[in-house]
Amino acid sequence: MAPPQREERPRVGIVGIGNMGLGMALRLLDQGSAVGVRDLVKERERAALRHGATVHADAAAVAQGRDLLIVAVVDSLQTEEVLFGEHGAVHGLAPGSTVLLCPTLAPQAVEDCAARLAGRGIDCVDAPMSGGPSRARDGTMSLMVACADAAFERWQPLLRDLSSRLFRIGTRPGDGARTKLVNNLLAAINLAGAAEALALAQQLGLDPAATLAVIEASSGQSWIGSDRLRRALAANTTVQAHMALLAKDSGLAMDMAAGAGLQPRLGQAAAAVFAQACVEGLAGQDDSALWRWLAEARRPHG
Amino acid sequence: MAPPQREERPRVGIVGIGNMGLGMALRLLDQGSAVGVRDLVKERERAALRHGATVHADAAAVAQGRDLLIVAVVDSLQTEEVLFGEHGAVHGLAPGSTVLLCPTLAPQAVEDCAARLAGRGIDCVDAPMSGGPSRARDGTMSLMVACADAAFERWQPLLRDLSSRLFRIGTRPGDGARTKLVNNLLAAINLAGAAEALALAQQLGLDPAATLAVIEASSGQSWIGSDRLRRALAANTTVQAHMALLAKDSGLAMDMAAGAGLQPRLGQAAAAVFAQACVEGLAGQDDSALWRWLAEARRPHG
Repeated sequence: MAPPQREERPRVGIVGIGNMGLGMALRLLDQGSAVGVRDLVKERERAALRHGATVHADAAAVAQGRDLLIVAVVDSLQTEEVLFGEHGAVHGLAPGSTVLLCPTLAPQAVEDCAARLAGRGIDCVDAPMSGGPSRARDGTMSLMVACADAAFERWQPLLRDLSSRLFRIGTRPGDGARTKLVNNLLAAINLAGAAEALALAQQLGLDPAATLAVIEASSGQSWIGSDRLRRALAANTTVQAHMALLAKDSGLAMDMAAGAGLQPRLGQAAAAVFAQACVEGLAGQDDSALWRWLAEARRPHG
Repeated sequence: MAPPQREERPRVGIVGIGNMGLGMALRLLDQGSAVGVRDLVKERERAALRHGATVHADAAAVAQGRDLLIVAVVDSLQTEEVLFGEHGAVHGLAPGSTVLLCPTLAPQAVEDCAARLAGRGIDCVDAPMSGGPSRARDGTMSLMVACADAAFERWQPLLRDLSSRLFRIGTRPGDGARTKLVNNLLAAINLAGAAEALALAQQLGLDPAATLAVIEASSGQSWIGSDRLRRALAANTTVQAHMALLAKDSGLAMDMAAGAGLQPRLGQAAAAVFAQACVEGLAGQDDSALWRWLAEARRPHG
């Protein structure tokens, strides 16, 4: 019997085509893949449709007949629903297919997903992403990949289409999530620290822009400090990364640390700052708003 | 009457030729300045002598007949002694000369120095430095300069010989110190955060070097995190920056913040981590030792 015919390019489904997922969808369409999508927001589905994607009614329908299903929703609740809900992807995926998990999830949630998918003969690639929409669109975002060697070999070409900065973390599902959360906790620390430092500079009568220029050329430099504070100084309030995201991730990271018997001091302080900003109504603002919030309130932060 | 003869290159004295001061001395000798030095460590004086400096018995003798006296000692106690002590520089400096203050001092200490020097007709340039010994040696370190416009105009050529990254902060003495302390507090935050994050990664069973590689390409990147953690991972224990330095500077910065009515959360956490490391005997180690100290102790940091 002849082996089953396989198309040159894999058939890919993507559930969740927000900022990152839509960029990935368009990138894969450019590369010649057949891409089916599903999102709660119709406007996003229409954007993907205009670029040649097919649009489906639910996750099960997207998953039907796909080699790879990419999950690019926001959190673990949505991931659970998309994969295992009433119209979830597992009802469409065949054994031998693969799920690529891109949201930032708790490591335990990734491990649970992988185990449940394995029970149905479906591979799971733990692959949290980083880098923002424009880098998702042009294939230069970062992926932190943990999965079995066979799945990695199989999907490496497609992963490299999506990500010019592909990090092979290891074989243990959840280690992608662990690495992502460690990085994001540090990003939260560096951003809260930079915002705090610039608020202090302003309170001391220093010029914030001049102070930032010194910091950028000195030992206080960080990527996220420069990126966010430059936008804040330019009064650019376009939302590129909601405050709620680093609030969520730093909280998840601190839970993970507590589970490992650690209580990192700087992480604790950063998680508290982001949580407080959200409580005070900044959850939907860009996280670069942290500086102005700290500077304007002249709050003791203590 | 003819105007007093003035040499092409200024006559410069340097008190304190440790890692940074010696680099500055050799740099100025290369540029053709006559340089007199003084240090408590004879070996350093001999090194400067071999390169063409003159060596003097005390700060007053170094200062005698100099246009510019550079103070490159460690802290405000030494600065006080070097300038105003029994054999201090003010007993040698003539009115119209200038003191360049390079240590990282409390802003109030800089203001006090400047006022006392002004009472003797001596200009004061507040110019904390940054960048390490090799950049001091080749003239590429940073200087954060606050002083009157006339003094800046007069010394700008020499300052640019010393520093290819010259930041003109303003005219208020103390603002150089304020800017430096804001930067160094942020450096302490970024380093303590990076060390903490990598200790967490290790505790979670992740590979520290692979995790650092992800961080360096992702949103958790910082200059000091990369610099120190790379050296720590390479088990390089050469002392380039004593733990005591950022401990001192983060403490000074938090005093400065408290004086301005602020109590920055991340800064507080970082100052506490550095202070604790010093209490536990790491004051004389390179500050890259922070990661191993956090990782080995598995202490709750709480």
